[in-house]
Amino acid sequence: MPGLFQTRILGSSAAVPTSLRHTTAQLLQYNNNYILLDCAEGTQMQLRRFKTPLMKINRIFISHLHGDHYLGLPGLLFTYHLLGREKDIHIYSPPGLEEIIELHYRVSRLRPSFEVVFHEINEGRELLCSDNDFLVESIEMEHRIPTYGFLIKEIEGRRNIKKEIIARYDIPVSQMPDIKKGKNLIRPDGQIIPNEVITTPAPSPRIYAFCSDTNYTESYIDQITGADLLYHEATFMADMEETARAKTHCTTKEAAETAKKADVKRLMIGHYSARYKELDSFLKEAEEIFPNTILAREGEVIPVG
Amino acid sequence: MPGLFQTRILGSSAAVPTSLRHTTAQLLQYNNNYILLDCAEGTQMQLRRFKTPLMKINRIFISHLHGDHYLGLPGLLFTYHLLGREKDIHIYSPPGLEEIIELHYRVSRLRPSFEVVFHEINEGRELLCSDNDFLVESIEMEHRIPTYGFLIKEIEGRRNIKKEIIARYDIPVSQMPDIKKGKNLIRPDGQIIPNEVITTPAPSPRIYAFCSDTNYTESYIDQITGADLLYHEATFMADMEETARAKTHCTTKEAAETAKKADVKRLMIGHYSARYKELDSFLKEAEEIFPNTILAREGEVIPVG
Repeated sequence: MPGLFQTRILGSSAAVPTSLRHTTAQLLQYNNNYILLDCAEGTQMQLRRFKTPLMKINRIFISHLHGDHYLGLPGLLFTYHLLGREKDIHIYSPPGLEEIIELHYRVSRLRPSFEVVFHEINEGRELLCSDNDFLVESIEMEHRIPTYGFLIKEIEGRRNIKKEIIARYDIPVSQMPDIKKGKNLIRPDGQIIPNEVITTPAPSPRIYAFCSDTNYTESYIDQITGADLLYHEATFMADMEETARAKTHCTTKEAAETAKKADVKRLMIGHYSARYKELDSFLKEAEEIFPNTILAREGEVIPVG
Repeated sequence: MPGLFQTRILGSSAAVPTSLRHTTAQLLQYNNNYILLDCAEGTQMQLRRFKTPLMKINRIFISHLHGDHYLGLPGLLFTYHLLGREKDIHIYSPPGLEEIIELHYRVSRLRPSFEVVFHEINEGRELLCSDNDFLVESIEMEHRIPTYGFLIKEIEGRRNIKKEIIARYDIPVSQMPDIKKGKNLIRPDGQIIPNEVITTPAPSPRIYAFCSDTNYTESYIDQITGADLLYHEATFMADMEETARAKTHCTTKEAAETAKKADVKRLMIGHYSARYKELDSFLKEAEEIFPNTILAREGEVIPVG
C-alpha cells in the first residue's frame, strides 16, 4: 500500500484576498505527517473550517516574506500556545521571519509553551528536511524578494508483499518492514525465500512540486521534471503578460508551458489575482497547452500521485 | 434627523478563533465615517464578506497588542497599498505597533502608497481624536499588558427644524446647518424668527463604550456611565470566575454587573472563549442581572442608540 500523499488547498488567492478566496496556504499530508506550505492570514481558521488536525502539523514552510504567504503564522503560533502545545515546531523560511515572530512575542509578553525552531533557507537548492517517508528540497524562484518553492519527495517506495504469500508462509508481522525494504524471508526452519518471489516492485517515489511566486523562468525546470503533481502560480490570464512581467508573476500559459517543459504528470494552477471572479477561462487557457491541468479550489484535497 | 451611528460585529471570539467565530474587530459607522475598533486576523476578509466600504476606513483603534486584537492589521495595510490607496490612515494603539508594522514593511520591501500616521495611547484618559460628528476617548482597562477601551461620543446633537416650518418660511438650505446649531432664522425682509420657535431640541448626544479586554474592575464605571450601548467582554460563563481572574478577563455576570453599575441603556457581550459552542446560556446569565443585553454575533449591525 503506497502512503497517503495529498495536499489540501487552504488559500488560492494572490496578494489581495476576496470574499471567496483566501491568500496562499496548503496542508500537505503524508500518512500521519502534516506540513504547511505557506501560512497566509486566515490559515488557522481554514484549518478549523475543514476539520484538519492542526495540532499535528510539525513543519511549516514559508516560500517568502510577502504578507500573503506568512501573515497567518503569528496567530497560529499564539493559538498553539493557548491550546497548550508542547511539541516542537520547525519553521523554514528565507531570513527575517524569526525577527518578526520574536517581536510579536515581545509586544504581547507571551512566550510559547513549546519550542519554535527556525531554519533559514539560503540561495541555491537545499535539502531542508528528511523524515522517514519524505524529504523536502528548496526550489529557487525568481521574484522581487528571496523566494523558494518546495519539492516534496517520497524517500523510496516500499515493495508490496503479495497477498497470497502472507497467508501461505504465515509471515510474522515483525519481518514485514524489512521485507518491504527488500530483505529475504527467513522461515522458522531456516529456509530462505528470496524477496523477489514474495514481493512486487515498489512504485516509483512520488514527487510534489510547489512553486509560488515566480516570474516565468526555465531555471528550475530540471529540478521539477517528472513530478507527479506540480502546483504552479498563475496569477494572471495570458493577455496580461506585461503585468505579469512587471510584477514578477506568471500567466496561465506560462504555468502550463512550465508543466509541459518539465514533463510533469499533472498541473494545478492557483494564486489567482483578485480581479478575476470566475476561473473556468483560467483552466481553459492552461489546458490548451497542458491538458492535464486542474484548478486549486479551497477545501479540495488533491492526491499527489 | 440624527446621524447614522452603528457598529458591525466582525469578530466575537476570544483569543482562539473557532470555525464559526473570528477574533475581535468591529466596524463603527457614523454617517459616512468608518472606523475600525480592533483588527484581528481575518478582518479584511470579514469586511469584504459583509460588503462594507473598506477603503473608507480612515481611523483604526487597537485596544492592545495581544494577537487576537491586531494581527489583521499588516494584511489590511498591504491590501490598501495593492488597491492603490492614497488617503492617510490614522492608527491609535498602545506603544509597540509602529515597530511591528515597520518590520513587516522592511522584510517585504514594500512601503505603502499612502501615509500611515501612528498615535500612541498613553496611561490615563485621553481624547484621541475628534471629528465634526464624534470624538473618541481612551478608557483604561485592567489587563496583562497596557489595554484601552474606547468611548465614542457624538459631539453634540443638532436641533431638528420642524417640518411644517421649512415649507412655511421657505428656509434656504444654506441657513439650515446654523439653525440646527441654534441660530435664529433671518428672513429676506429682516424679520427674525427665534430658533426655539422653528426647531425642536437636539436629542442628547449618543455614546458607545467599547470595553475589551479587562479584568472585573470599577475603575472606569464613571467614564461609561449612561452610555447608550456598552460592548463589554464576557470571555467566560459565571462558573469560571477563578479562570477569569487568572486570565484577567470577565464573566457574563461581571459584564452585566458593570452595565448595571454604569446604568447604561443596553449591553452587548462578546469575546467568547472558544470552549463554548452555543451562546444562549451566555445571554441568559447576563440577562438575569442586566435584562437589556444582547449577544455580539458576526455580521450583525447594532445601532448605538
